[in-house]
Amino acid sequence: MKLTRNEQTDNIINALNKKDPEQFRDLFLKLHFYDQSQLLILMSTQQRSLLYQYLTPKELGDMFDELEVNEENGIDYLNEMPTRLAANVLSEMYTDNTVDMLSKASRDELSTYLNLMPISENHEIRQLLNYDDKTAGALMTTEYIAVNVGSTVGQTMQTIRQNAENAEIIYYVYVQDDAENLVGVVTLRDLLSNDKRAQVKEIMNSNVYRVFVDDDQEEVAQTVREYNFLAMPVVNRAGHLLGIITVDDIIDVIDEESVEDYSGLAGVNVDEPDDSPWVTALHRLPWLITLLILGMSTASLISHFEGLVSEASVLAVFISLITGTAGNAGTQSLAVAVRKLSVNNSREMGRLIRNEVVTGVLIGIVTAVVITVIVGLWKGNFVLGMVIGFSMVAAIIVANLAGSLIPILMDKIGVDPAVASGPFISTLSDLTSVMIYFTIARLFIVYLM
Amino acid sequence: MKLTRNEQTDNIINALNKKDPEQFRDLFLKLHFYDQSQLLILMSTQQRSLLYQYLTPKELGDMFDELEVNEENGIDYLNEMPTRLAANVLSEMYTDNTVDMLSKASRDELSTYLNLMPISENHEIRQLLNYDDKTAGALMTTEYIAVNVGSTVGQTMQTIRQNAENAEIIYYVYVQDDAENLVGVVTLRDLLSNDKRAQVKEIMNSNVYRVFVDDDQEEVAQTVREYNFLAMPVVNRAGHLLGIITVDDIIDVIDEESVEDYSGLAGVNVDEPDDSPWVTALHRLPWLITLLILGMSTASLISHFEGLVSEASVLAVFISLITGTAGNAGTQSLAVAVRKLSVNNSREMGRLIRNEVVTGVLIGIVTAVVITVIVGLWKGNFVLGMVIGFSMVAAIIVANLAGSLIPILMDKIGVDPAVASGPFISTLSDLTSVMIYFTIARLFIVYLM
Repeated sequence: MKLTRNEQTDNIINALNKKDPEQFRDLFLKLHFYDQSQLLILMSTQQRSLLYQYLTPKELGDMFDELEVNEENGIDYLNEMPTRLAANVLSEMYTDNTVDMLSKASRDELSTYLNLMPISENHEIRQLLNYDDKTAGALMTTEYIAVNVGSTVGQTMQTIRQNAENAEIIYYVYVQDDAENLVGVVTLRDLLSNDKRAQVKEIMNSNVYRVFVDDDQEEVAQTVREYNFLAMPVVNRAGHLLGIITVDDIIDVIDEESVEDYSGLAGVNVDEPDDSPWVTALHRLPWLITLLILGMSTASLISHFEGLVSEASVLAVFISLITGTAGNAGTQSLAVAVRKLSVNNSREMGRLIRNEVVTGVLIGIVTAVVITVIVGLWKGNFVLGMVIGFSMVAAIIVANLAGSLIPILMDKIGVDPAVASGPFISTLSDLTSVMIYFTIARLFIVYLM
Repeated sequence: MKLTRNEQTDNIINALNKKDPEQFRDLFLKLHFYDQSQLLILMSTQQRSLLYQYLTPKELGDMFDELEVNEENGIDYLNEMPTRLAANVLSEMYTDNTVDMLSKASRDELSTYLNLMPISENHEIRQLLNYDDKTAGALMTTEYIAVNVGSTVGQTMQTIRQNAENAEIIYYVYVQDDAENLVGVVTLRDLLSNDKRAQVKEIMNSNVYRVFVDDDQEEVAQTVREYNFLAMPVVNRAGHLLGIITVDDIIDVIDEESVEDYSGLAGVNVDEPDDSPWVTALHRLPWLITLLILGMSTASLISHFEGLVSEASVLAVFISLITGTAGNAGTQSLAVAVRKLSVNNSREMGRLIRNEVVTGVLIGIVTAVVITVIVGLWKGNFVLGMVIGFSMVAAIIVANLAGSLIPILMDKIGVDPAVASGPFISTLSDLTSVMIYFTIARLFIVYLM
């Protein structure tokens, strides 16, 4: 629900225009942080420069934490501020958001900001920036609460109170031994249900689910989804706690991954920005031209068989029916295979291919019978009907095979199978369908002229 | 990460086989509830019947709370138990999960279980079962913590401690006035940062985001996603708090909606169960046959122009190139439109259609020029090249128009636009592409023979 202009937002903008900091602060700080960030985007540059003066770095940080970095070019807003203020705001933000924002900065901007931040934060952020995109390390934040395994419930509650302001989440407390290994987790719920003097090691869950810093974000999201966690600790290979990923970031990952899958199936980036049609066309053309070249090979294949068509022009009537139906079937197989790959992590894939091929046979046979009868009655020529029918079966089986095999092969060589787009599979199946169709037609050409 | 067999699970199964309740309980109860549920699914009927005897209703309830109702037919497992035990287990589960499970029960099973449950729960569940599927009411649970607006922080903490065992979430506490209207929310974080004697009404957030009980689940998910909430209160039109939806259920909704969109684009349910190919084929056939019939109208259209093809067989060469390229472009428009509809809630749709059409013009022109040159050089006939080129432009524009308009019209009449599948749009664009192609070809037929 994007923020829409209304009386409340109008009053806030008026206060800015009137250069009235007290009234502006009074109204603006009542808004939820997310709504503040959405209002920021709607403001003019002049209004924003006043806002930067009227709010404290912490208040700015709270708002910037909510800026969706991918959509709203947070770094551009940061660059509007005086540099020192921007560095302070970055310090006030949660580290995972700081890292996201700085990952979009130029090298110079990055150096400038980092050098103005406290040394420890400087190092921490540089480290986090080093992690590969789309891994646990790139998602995590460092504002978690951890206690030593020798602590009591009372001591832990004290730690929570002290960190309640700054930690990204206080409802899970991680337990470390003296060597900083992650040895347990205790929830605030557990702590409240126990006496102050109880030992944390008695009530903690020592079977802590964790992810490694280089784990793929899709796997992390899958684990959080299955176990309904509010946060997931991230460790290095030695078992030391490095950071946490909170469920709200997991939701963003799930959304990102599903948009990628959807885009892959359609052969277009469905979250393309709202640019002018010129830019949009420019983005879509490369792929469409590539498919066009692939389509030209189908055209030259038909050209190879052009003699057949001039002898029996009725053959042209059924080209798009066969290619279209096989393309639809192949797209179905592709979608099912990509889905099962993302959910099952590559087990039982041989069985999947087998199932898709057999499904293709069954679908093909039914479709072939239907089409043989329709064509036979329509054109009064059952040999023609059977040619179309046989071609249909074979084309569907090949399409299903390609649709299931190609994403699996891509997955095996390490490419995200969602990239095997629907248009690619259907264009490929056009080629195979045409090959099959005319080869069969040639055998029976005498009956078709 | 589905549970895999390993030494730990083998030991548990052995303890069951040896009919050793203490050892079984000792090992089994160490597992995370989710892992317990996954192990349950792997067991045989005999093993499960022992498990039902060895665990308390509460322990069974904790495990059943984690059963993914859609996938794992929880109701079947429930029906394996003695009826009274099953009713107790249902009582121990969180109400939203109880409702999900009972929504899959037969009428008789439902009556039987409800009549064995305490009257208040009976009524509560019946009420929740009445809400339409995919609304906030159908998702919510009633195990939340609420306090009166006159409470102190200390009193609230006491309430939390008392309910820590049973509430689905204790980290948000809802504040009601004497008339049970929802007037505020206070987080456990806020409570811990304040003195015991502070008044809740001083520290609560009175600007509580809420959803109505009949709100669509996709909108609820969008709000939770944007504001990063851990839970969302559900109210009726009078403002009374009825229940809450927790973030883990929102994640399931997001997943469900994205699988639906993906399935719609592909024209197949990608989460179809792992059935035999016979059943799979049976599920996919109706839609494929429907598309086949639509494809037959394209075939009869080409048949109408068969005379042209026999005069200039070269026309057959480019049928699949034009239909295929237009189909790919149309699928891209469709995917972008469906995505923008789900994100933007139907604003600026006129602009979207306009953009898609203009993008189609630009793409079409570039594609047409490329194809005119290729065909002209290849076949030594630039009139042919231009016929193909013009047809390409027009076919792409029409496909983009259909691909963006159809989901928007569907949304306006209240049908989920994700149902406008890719195969439908591309089959429809086959028809329009062929119409355009042969109409243009007829005008220039003398130059093509």
